[in-house]
Amino acid sequence: MNRFKITELGRDVFWLRDAEREHLVRVLRLSPGDLVVGYDNTGREYTSVIDTIEDKSVTCRILSTDQPDVEAHTSVFVVAGLSKGEKMEWVIQKGTELGMAGLIPLRAKRSIVHIEGKKAQDRVLRWQKIASEASKQSHRVQEPEIFEVCDWKDLKKHLPENTQWLIPYEEEKTQRLTTVLGTMKAEHPTAIIIGPEGGFEETEVAWAQENLGAQSVSLGPRILRTETAAVATLTLVLGHFGDIG
Amino acid sequence: MNRFKITELGRDVFWLRDAEREHLVRVLRLSPGDLVVGYDNTGREYTSVIDTIEDKSVTCRILSTDQPDVEAHTSVFVVAGLSKGEKMEWVIQKGTELGMAGLIPLRAKRSIVHIEGKKAQDRVLRWQKIASEASKQSHRVQEPEIFEVCDWKDLKKHLPENTQWLIPYEEEKTQRLTTVLGTMKAEHPTAIIIGPEGGFEETEVAWAQENLGAQSVSLGPRILRTETAAVATLTLVLGHFGDIG
Repeated sequence: MNRFKITELGRDVFWLRDAEREHLVRVLRLSPGDLVVGYDNTGREYTSVIDTIEDKSVTCRILSTDQPDVEAHTSVFVVAGLSKGEKMEWVIQKGTELGMAGLIPLRAKRSIVHIEGKKAQDRVLRWQKIASEASKQSHRVQEPEIFEVCDWKDLKKHLPENTQWLIPYEEEKTQRLTTVLGTMKAEHPTAIIIGPEGGFEETEVAWAQENLGAQSVSLGPRILRTETAAVATLTLVLGHFGDIG
Repeated sequence: MNRFKITELGRDVFWLRDAEREHLVRVLRLSPGDLVVGYDNTGREYTSVIDTIEDKSVTCRILSTDQPDVEAHTSVFVVAGLSKGEKMEWVIQKGTELGMAGLIPLRAKRSIVHIEGKKAQDRVLRWQKIASEASKQSHRVQEPEIFEVCDWKDLKKHLPENTQWLIPYEEEKTQRLTTVLGTMKAEHPTAIIIGPEGGFEETEVAWAQENLGAQSVSLGPRILRTETAAVATLTLVLGHFGDIG
């Protein structure tokens, strides 16, 4: 059954407008009588039947409401140093499937990609669309939030005080991720800070340790690309807390 | 330092020929006096200096030999149902970085991609190149093997008798990967069988359970794309045995 993000929720019905309506009408070509699932980012999903297709909206009649236990119980955010090409999109797509709570794009010192102002806003909108599509594909009921592109000094304000910050770092030779995971709490959010292609500068890691209380960790002896590191670390953290695997 | 797969190993020197020579001379444009690292798929790496560049080979003089502990201690193979486009290449690239021992391309019932004969052989050669590049990038000293494209009935002959077969399956609702991992041995090889985009047919899973002793496992409540499932499962298995994270 096709899944849609509800534009407006009524009592026994919901409406799909704009991009959701377009997708339903033009791409999927669904009709009155077809079954669809709507979700509203509150953890609920609504199995429904298409009632009418109007000029600017689609009305769906709710048949049953469910609160599926599909979301991760622990909140894990990915802070991704801006990287080239499709890497950010790949991390957002896979990160959403795996179960991340959100992604913060970070201007790291060695980021080759530089985006500001309107260009940055447009990019975030596009990334949010990717998160939305991936949420539907993986049957999530709470889309991860893609934050505005930010700098190191902005990170603290985006996440709660009790966030556990992890920074996989190639130069970290002794402290393994697995060890640190054993000291962490599932009920506090976790944020994984992933470097761009060129990795982090020592000063960035030191700043994160001092100002965020971040723990630098090794992912083992093999060197991983930025997008592989993001997905592997996310998988290991969620796996540790029983939210995947 | 740039890394190369040794064509021929001597006592105090080694030679690079064909594609390795081409890459060194034409792409990287290295010269006599430059330092390089050679590996020969036996677990050893040789820090060396380029001595001479000849018409068909490059001679490198070995300065020191090392056996870095960079490879996973447990052998994990990925059996990948043939999937479309770049997905196989992503899995091979990321799988190599993460530390897989090899990849067996499998003709699954729902595979949309169909390759046989020479086309299949050429595809395997290309995939082996990707594994080779990813090995260099991640500093591995033992490249994973890309096997010939095969069918279900051929799988058993490719891997040892004591291989532990896992088959992540969407329809498996009760047995979690984490539970099964707790019963497995690090000293026996593991093979993860990943379905193509359409997943597996029930008959395929039943065949694997009967003929390979495969355990069907759930990766949790969210639905993963084939390439995400491959990378996540590989990460969780290697992580469980302490080979990543």
